[in-house]
Amino acid sequence: MNDIFATLESEVRSYSRTWPTVFDRAGGSYLYDEDGTGYLDFFAGAGALNYGHNNPLLKRKLIEYIERDGVTHGLDQSTVAKRAFLETFRDNVLEPRGLNYKVQFPGPTGTNSVESALKLVRKITGRESIISFTNAFHGMTLGSLSVTGNSMKRGGAGIPLVHATPMPYDDYFDGQVPDFLYFEKMLEDSGSGLNEPAAVIVETLQGEGGINSSRPAWLRGLYELCQKHGMLMIVDDVQMGCGRTGPFFSFEEAGIQPDIVCLSKSIGGYGLPLALTLIKPEHDVWEPGEHNGTFRGNNPAFVTATEALKQYWADDSLEKSTIAKGERVGEVLEELAAKYGAVAKGRGLARGLGFEDTDVAGKVSKAAFDRKLLVETSGPSSEVIKIMPPLTVSDDELEQGLQIIRDSVHSVLA
Amino acid sequence: MNDIFATLESEVRSYSRTWPTVFDRAGGSYLYDEDGTGYLDFFAGAGALNYGHNNPLLKRKLIEYIERDGVTHGLDQSTVAKRAFLETFRDNVLEPRGLNYKVQFPGPTGTNSVESALKLVRKITGRESIISFTNAFHGMTLGSLSVTGNSMKRGGAGIPLVHATPMPYDDYFDGQVPDFLYFEKMLEDSGSGLNEPAAVIVETLQGEGGINSSRPAWLRGLYELCQKHGMLMIVDDVQMGCGRTGPFFSFEEAGIQPDIVCLSKSIGGYGLPLALTLIKPEHDVWEPGEHNGTFRGNNPAFVTATEALKQYWADDSLEKSTIAKGERVGEVLEELAAKYGAVAKGRGLARGLGFEDTDVAGKVSKAAFDRKLLVETSGPSSEVIKIMPPLTVSDDELEQGLQIIRDSVHSVLA
Amino acid sequence: MNDIFATLESEVRSYSRTWPTVFDRAGGSYLYDEDGTGYLDFFAGAGALNYGHNNPLLKRKLIEYIERDGVTHGLDQSTVAKRAFLETFRDNVLEPRGLNYKVQFPGPTGTNSVESALKLVRKITGRESIISFTNAFHGMTLGSLSVTGNSMKRGGAGIPLVHATPMPYDDYFDGQVPDFLYFEKMLEDSGSGLNEPAAVIVETLQGEGGINSSRPAWLRGLYELCQKHGMLMIVDDVQMGCGRTGPFFSFEEAGIQPDIVCLSKSIGGYGLPLALTLIKPEHDVWEPGEHNGTFRGNNPAFVTATEALKQYWADDSLEKSTIAKGERVGEVLEELAAKYGAVAKGRGLARGLGFEDTDVAGKVSKAAFDRKLLVETSGPSSEVIKIMPPLTVSDDELEQGLQIIRDSVHSVLA
Amino acid sequence: MNDIFATLESEVRSYSRTWPTVFDRAGGSYLYDEDGTGYLDFFAGAGALNYGHNNPLLKRKLIEYIERDGVTHGLDQSTVAKRAFLETFRDNVLEPRGLNYKVQFPGPTGTNSVESALKLVRKITGRESIISFTNAFHGMTLGSLSVTGNSMKRGGAGIPLVHATPMPYDDYFDGQVPDFLYFEKMLEDSGSGLNEPAAVIVETLQGEGGINSSRPAWLRGLYELCQKHGMLMIVDDVQMGCGRTGPFFSFEEAGIQPDIVCLSKSIGGYGLPLALTLIKPEHDVWEPGEHNGTFRGNNPAFVTATEALKQYWADDSLEKSTIAKGERVGEVLEELAAKYGAVAKGRGLARGLGFEDTDVAGKVSKAAFDRKLLVETSGPSSEVIKIMPPLTVSDDELEQGLQIIRDSVHSVLA
Repeated sequence: MNDIFATLESEVRSYSRTWPTVFDRAGGSYLYDEDGTGYLDFFAGAGALNYGHNNPLLKRKLIEYIERDGVTHGLDQSTVAKRAFLETFRDNVLEPRGLNYKVQFPGPTGTNSVESALKLVRKITGRESIISFTNAFHGMTLGSLSVTGNSMKRGGAGIPLVHATPMPYDDYFDGQVPDFLYFEKMLEDSGSGLNEPAAVIVETLQGEGGINSSRPAWLRGLYELCQKHGMLMIVDDVQMGCGRTGPFFSFEEAGIQPDIVCLSKSIGGYGLPLALTLIKPEHDVWEPGEHNGTFRGNNPAFVTATEALKQYWADDSLEKSTIAKGERVGEVLEELAAKYGAVAKGRGLARGLGFEDTDVAGKVSKAAFDRKLLVETSGPSSEVIKIMPPLTVSDDELEQGLQIIRDSVHSVLA
Repeated sequence: MNDIFATLESEVRSYSRTWPTVFDRAGGSYLYDEDGTGYLDFFAGAGALNYGHNNPLLKRKLIEYIERDGVTHGLDQSTVAKRAFLETFRDNVLEPRGLNYKVQFPGPTGTNSVESALKLVRKITGRESIISFTNAFHGMTLGSLSVTGNSMKRGGAGIPLVHATPMPYDDYFDGQVPDFLYFEKMLEDSGSGLNEPAAVIVETLQGEGGINSSRPAWLRGLYELCQKHGMLMIVDDVQMGCGRTGPFFSFEEAGIQPDIVCLSKSIGGYGLPLALTLIKPEHDVWEPGEHNGTFRGNNPAFVTATEALKQYWADDSLEKSTIAKGERVGEVLEELAAKYGAVAKGRGLARGLGFEDTDVAGKVSKAAFDRKLLVETSGPSSEVIKIMPPLTVSDDELEQGLQIIRDSVHSVLA
Repeated sequence: MNDIFATLESEVRSYSRTWPTVFDRAGGSYLYDEDGTGYLDFFAGAGALNYGHNNPLLKRKLIEYIERDGVTHGLDQSTVAKRAFLETFRDNVLEPRGLNYKVQFPGPTGTNSVESALKLVRKITGRESIISFTNAFHGMTLGSLSVTGNSMKRGGAGIPLVHATPMPYDDYFDGQVPDFLYFEKMLEDSGSGLNEPAAVIVETLQGEGGINSSRPAWLRGLYELCQKHGMLMIVDDVQMGCGRTGPFFSFEEAGIQPDIVCLSKSIGGYGLPLALTLIKPEHDVWEPGEHNGTFRGNNPAFVTATEALKQYWADDSLEKSTIAKGERVGEVLEELAAKYGAVAKGRGLARGLGFEDTDVAGKVSKAAFDRKLLVETSGPSSEVIKIMPPLTVSDDELEQGLQIIRDSVHSVLA
Repeated sequence: MNDIFATLESEVRSYSRTWPTVFDRAGGSYLYDEDGTGYLDFFAGAGALNYGHNNPLLKRKLIEYIERDGVTHGLDQSTVAKRAFLETFRDNVLEPRGLNYKVQFPGPTGTNSVESALKLVRKITGRESIISFTNAFHGMTLGSLSVTGNSMKRGGAGIPLVHATPMPYDDYFDGQVPDFLYFEKMLEDSGSGLNEPAAVIVETLQGEGGINSSRPAWLRGLYELCQKHGMLMIVDDVQMGCGRTGPFFSFEEAGIQPDIVCLSKSIGGYGLPLALTLIKPEHDVWEPGEHNGTFRGNNPAFVTATEALKQYWADDSLEKSTIAKGERVGEVLEELAAKYGAVAKGRGLARGLGFEDTDVAGKVSKAAFDRKLLVETSGPSSEVIKIMPPLTVSDDELEQGLQIIRDSVHSVLA
């Protein structure tokens, strides 16, 4: 069937192995393969499709823009589409939350944003070292990889990844150790041997790392530690921003204002490549052109991004529905956790079910695919079922998907 | 006019300063600002728009695809659109040239491709060091930046960039020194102190570096040196591939088959983000998922990429017209060079005019903008006018643009 | 008085500022300045003078050797003096303790030995990363500095020190955290982001770090952790070996056999530069000449080293007297600790008194110098009085020195 | 015979394999093995024995000092012996040459001095990168190794050595390329990719690298290049200083005053470990104690060093005799070079004879040993006979040694 993928595409391909079919069309919560079989999608482009596949509201604007020959490729030139995006981002995202950030377009992917953030904090502070967290995932380019935890991915670098030190993420020791005991002692002790950090980079909820959610109090503690020790705080909201956990930014509940925020994935709205680096104005010390990139001005993505902000972030209805749907998912996961000795994880619509036996999650994912549901695994040993439907999933679709998850887990463990 | 750009966009913005207007629409060789003023575009998205803005042939296919709800975001899942692209790339690009490469989709930008290439050569060889060339440009993420020459860009890294050693590019010493004298001696002398290189990474024509063209004989010499000393050869064809110098790949004239080739920019055809890493089959040692990325499967870009290959690379007519147009540009540049003591540079439709006085090129670019022509500068001191019209530029547009260049140079130097 | 030191010697000079006089002669536990004033020396060359100054037993052999024109400088040639040393080291040190080590002469200082150890563990394992410990001190050359904790010393490197990760030393959290909780979790979690370590390097008692003594059980736990995770264990016994804590090696009490042991300072016996790297035979994978150095064969030091081993390590009398004297020092320090709210630290004749107020120890050292006793401070904030008399100190000298310490502390704090 | 060396000493041992006997006594130009066989020493402790073995003038002072219980081990305390050394160094070395340097005692070996120099230039300039030269040798600790050329030694580091870039040494291209063409272009071109260097480190004559002598004009050119581009100049005079090439410092003929000079080996006079780092006063920016070391104050070595300066550097007689003897050696080497198609190399009493066939020099060294002459090989492939007798060698001894060299070469090549 997919001969040319096997013969011509590199061995690095991965999801095409997990879901061995050839997809053709998509809409809302569904992907359809070339035979017309529909798959309920609880993966949502790894968080890039919070508003569903080919969202018709955005699609209309996108086609209009293309039809009227709006600028497609714009480097970082000023365009009408970019202006509309900036205005809408200011009006619907920043101002209502009392946030004050300059916006950088660092290249159209999450790792571009992370790389720009790392460069900037080093420039601001004159220090090299970054604090990352256990099981963090920030991307595959060399800078981002150095703050990523996964040893297989790190091994791919081919050179020592050395300018970052990992610290334990929230609850890494199951409550045995007070928050930041280790980190703070290392910072305060001038003989600790810890290189003075420029910044910490943190996900408020680790998606790839196993759906590990941090508590607001932990994030606040981290923010205070940063301020006390002259470290900047980067929140990588590439996967968990744009409403995935409920609020637009995943850090809102903690009441903090990170120095730098990385956004990508769903910021484009329609699954088109786009990324933003948000920078507190006092930290915007870039020279013109000091960081650039060919596709930083992906104007069709500005158009769909703008419309997504208008449609979904003019009020708090999406946030509320995400939280409600997330709670419903949580209930089912708790039920499964209790029944099968697993652990229910996550918040909002970033949810997971973790198993002691590291073979289970993969089998459940496969069983779900057989039942026409796409769910992925995550965690260092792929031991967690990762459940991330589009935020626009209907209640019926949600229940349907949850039932497949129940059945799939049952088929594996019963 | 562009208030929000100044207040909300980061100081890193650059082209919006060079061309201080707000663009709205585009078509073929023209960009139009929001007042309807048309600008003849001899910049072509830094090489991302070889087929012009909003090419109608590609546009039709793109809209059709969006209309019928083809998969937009596909990670690295198999899709119908990706299959069509792979088949067309094989049929119209690889097979006619007798090339045998596996195709990796490393993330949708040039720097993603370069990062994947660097990781792969290190994995293959078990060595860390890379040989780059003077005035190379490969991208802004940490791995790519380490093989980039420009000191301002390098400074942005904030950490020492240390795993690469620069070697002199072709004709770096104006013929005073035999090719590879230095490089080869360093390789052969076990006491030279040069770390054993995993690979060389080279552009056959340096765009950002100042439109420095290498001779086919030099490239062949480099290829032979690589084979003799167990180094892999990466050609970064991000800017110069897809026909910019005439043939599809810029290295075809040299008759070599690099181990790895990086493609991006115009491969998507329509200015949409897409990148490829081509890998000789014996070097495709990736583990599944060892390098990944959210936007590696940008399906709308597959659609326009496929159509571009069908429209422009089914025969050699584009290659021939590019060479012819390039020669025409070359004539005018030689004329200007002779008149003003400048240097005409480049080949195909990647052309440049270099000035001793490093202030001139910037002034010419400004004078051209005043005359409604977009041309950029390049080179370490921005001392070269960089002339890269769409390959689809008409003869009339070409002559019109060349006349503006003549006038602009005259206005600055006369 | 010491004009030429101020005008000609570099600003880096340090002890000459602490003890501002010009020393001329020395004997046993005393240094005499050029005015003939005697100073009781409870510093002992930072551990290089365990057998006292100009020990007459060794002096006799040294003069005999020089008189008879024994080889002075011998690179790593075989010499009669080296043979005698190797035989005696085998007979009096290795065999009685059931230890089996190959002996490398890596250059005549502690940091040479540490550098050779770090190179060797990287060669053996093919890994780059080293685990060091908080408040470790291993030397001033670049490799050793990278595993040293002190931030002022580290800052002197002028480049990022990146191939080591510090872990908490024994009792770093005052018993709040189980031993190795953090370290072991980081090793076991493939997503922790910790680079796989080649080795740990540890002092069993940190001298420069503030007289921090580790428990035998902690060392055993560390040794087991190393074996479990394929890390080698380097014990840096440069300051604490040669009987400073009682037994010849400071790790004997723990009952472990480290993979590599670094010795220097008192191994030469008479204060002459000499260093050894002890290597388990299966790890002796050096190529001939892969690590070399001009002064690795300091033959006069072999002579005094041999005689020291014969005089002091043919039986366990020195070990016993050191432990007894150490206990006497401990009693006095406990008495002072109780009286002044300080902390008594250390074991054997490596003892310390730590103060909360980081100004106190420096003042006590100065007060002691005024009373003709040399004691240094240590710890990250120089907050600990470091008490290290020669092991050959007489009971009278010991009591005299302890009385001066009492008086000095009293003069500062009363 | 030397059982214990084979069983107990590490495989890293090297010279003991080259000269397989056990040495016992030494005097002047001779080493004697335990059977009483005398070997004429044209190696001189790799340059550590410029005044011969156990020089009686120095021996007398050394024994007197030990007999009268002069301070042996002095860290960096002020001592009478150190004062005498500093005064004599000022009076007999610095002042007569119009040189103004502060003196650091960085630890007693050459590599300690090099490490201190590298740290200091990085601190002064705030830059990380160092320029080294092809076939340089600076030592085995990590910093020094990174500026050393030999690939076998570099491989021993076990981590990438990355903060230095090698440049071609004088005449590296046999006159095909103007001096500094490459280096200067890389410095001047802001797009070259060369990290801005803190300093260059250079030997004026490379001993280990194959007795490669640089011309005074080349050194002056390098010095001027340093001044023009804000780089500091470190001369590593560890092996070639103290009169080896004639004048006390090997750079005197070039008429330059390097920013930092590294001295060790023969500075102690008697083969005892001692090293100096000379620093122009304006560069002496060390914090007290920022670089330290246990054996930096080796007082017996101060005594012999002082006496050596008094005996040999109160006038220019040694310099003159070294030059004369060197010329005599040169004549013989030229004669051999002409006869056997070899290359005569070096200046002063650092001389070499290089062979195309890389097996020859090793065989000659062995043939010489059979004839009771010690000569070593050097160069990246050990292709050069390295001839470095003590500067105090008598004319008879010199002729005798040269005759053995003639015979040995003849025995190998005839």
